[in-house]
Amino acid sequence: MFDSSCIFCKIIQGSIPSTIIKENEYVTVIENIAPKAPTHYLIIPKKHLIDVAQLTQADQQFGWNILKIAGEVAQEKKLSGFNLISNNGKSAGQSVFHLHFHFMSGKNLYSGEFKL
Amino acid sequence: MFDSSCIFCKIIQGSIPSTIIKENEYVTVIENIAPKAPTHYLIIPKKHLIDVAQLTQADQQFGWNILKIAGEVAQEKKLSGFNLISNNGKSAGQSVFHLHFHFMSGKNLYSGEFKL
Repeated sequence: MFDSSCIFCKIIQGSIPSTIIKENEYVTVIENIAPKAPTHYLIIPKKHLIDVAQLTQADQQFGWNILKIAGEVAQEKKLSGFNLISNNGKSAGQSVFHLHFHFMSGKNLYSGEFKL
Repeated sequence: MFDSSCIFCKIIQGSIPSTIIKENEYVTVIENIAPKAPTHYLIIPKKHLIDVAQLTQADQQFGWNILKIAGEVAQEKKLSGFNLISNNGKSAGQSVFHLHFHFMSGKNLYSGEFKL
């Protein structure tokens, strides 16, 4: 379930401290310690999954609860706009190889080169 | 299930043409007609859901299959790196109010101001 060398596994298990925003049986939402937006959380499954490409049917509850808890956090924090972003693979900018989604709000991410 | 004024509902129902990359019972993956990366797909649930904040437990299969099919597409297209991005709410850059995730590959999205 966990990888002893993974920083996110250590955070989930509590051996590295974090500020928990919300959690359930399958996922935890923590403050990003280096925020890039006024609100910047990380949504992390409580299983050492590498990335979205590795998800199988057996991981359904971990995957679904990432989206479900994102919606719950948005409602509870009364955030009418938010971006969910997952980088999968080193070439896509992933730096911690434990699946996670960035939850960001309060910043226009698309003021630069492209508009999605 | 569908909204007759929604462009993504029309695409799902086939009344507006699209290039389908992959689909299953719950979601469809199409080419973005205005790509912002060498690979740029849109993953769209086959139900008129507004955004992630609107998801409820009843939408589990729609939500889960977004992530599941993203992983399948990455494997089938042999894309080792990809970004999944969902903008929720006008203030976060959402322009079509039918839940969707951008699937992008082949471009460094974070060469500008911030690195996620």
